[in-house]
Amino acid sequence: MHIEFRPIGIIHSPYPDPAGVPIQGILAKNVRGSVEVFPEFGEALADLDGFSHIILIYFFHRSSGFAQKCRPFLDTRERGVFATRAPRRPNPIGISIVGLLGMHACRMDIDSLDIVDGTPLLDIKPYVPDFDMRDAVRTGWYATAANKGQTVSDSRFVTGESGRGR
Amino acid sequence: MHIEFRPIGIIHSPYPDPAGVPIQGILAKNVRGSVEVFPEFGEALADLDGFSHIILIYFFHRSSGFAQKCRPFLDTRERGVFATRAPRRPNPIGISIVGLLGMHACRMDIDSLDIVDGTPLLDIKPYVPDFDMRDAVRTGWYATAANKGQTVSDSRFVTGESGRGR
Repeated sequence: MHIEFRPIGIIHSPYPDPAGVPIQGILAKNVRGSVEVFPEFGEALADLDGFSHIILIYFFHRSSGFAQKCRPFLDTRERGVFATRAPRRPNPIGISIVGLLGMHACRMDIDSLDIVDGTPLLDIKPYVPDFDMRDAVRTGWYATAANKGQTVSDSRFVTGESGRGR
Repeated sequence: MHIEFRPIGIIHSPYPDPAGVPIQGILAKNVRGSVEVFPEFGEALADLDGFSHIILIYFFHRSSGFAQKCRPFLDTRERGVFATRAPRRPNPIGISIVGLLGMHACRMDIDSLDIVDGTPLLDIKPYVPDFDMRDAVRTGWYATAANKGQTVSDSRFVTGESGRGR
């Protein structure tokens, strides 16, 4: 079974390359950029302007291949890729919660961007705390991760230096 | 540009059809099911067992077509589809935060399932409150939605009765 998607737009950010991008949006306060949605999907953006935060779902187009395990930016040990947010995944899908600062027809001003410039956008969903926040959460390796001070990415997932990929 | 994904596994739930599924996982406490990841991706599940909550990314395989606008389950008015979580999207991608109760090789016991049985799984990510929780959030139409008491879906997105689809 193959599932085919197509971009609904493009994400514009200050980061031309995967190295140097904030590791998570929460570490990217005041990193501004924009999302350009193709005009054919313009009507579907109605009512989005009432939401202060949106979820972007996108294609990690600068990641190559896939590794079962990788060393996350925040840790010193290899972890199963599904226990990380790393981009070299079987299906290279990224999700980011970003701030929606304003809308101008099909262009949105965005805050807290942790995404490479030119990334193909697949979907947008509203962020709703009632749906998206969970209490009493255990966070495995992340809870005691050794490199939590690291805030930006490097090129490890571009060159494939980490992990046993195909 | 076309982007091709393939399932990494299958989601098993008590819901054979889209009608009657809890609208969100948060409304599906104690709805148990399982996720079966194909053995070729088994190594990538390492370290996931430390997380109490995971994010499932999946293909809305029972949704047909796409509408620019739709009437969400929780509201009485039509909204732009990107301002909703409805399944009839340009790229029918769903995300759910679920409880991870246990792991048995490539099979995971899951809680809080708001997903139709047999749904193709595309990706798994760990839920990390540091990354995934946002304060001071405005939630647009949802804040005053008229049907917030509704907890389960109906068949509107299967039959296409709502929205101006192509």
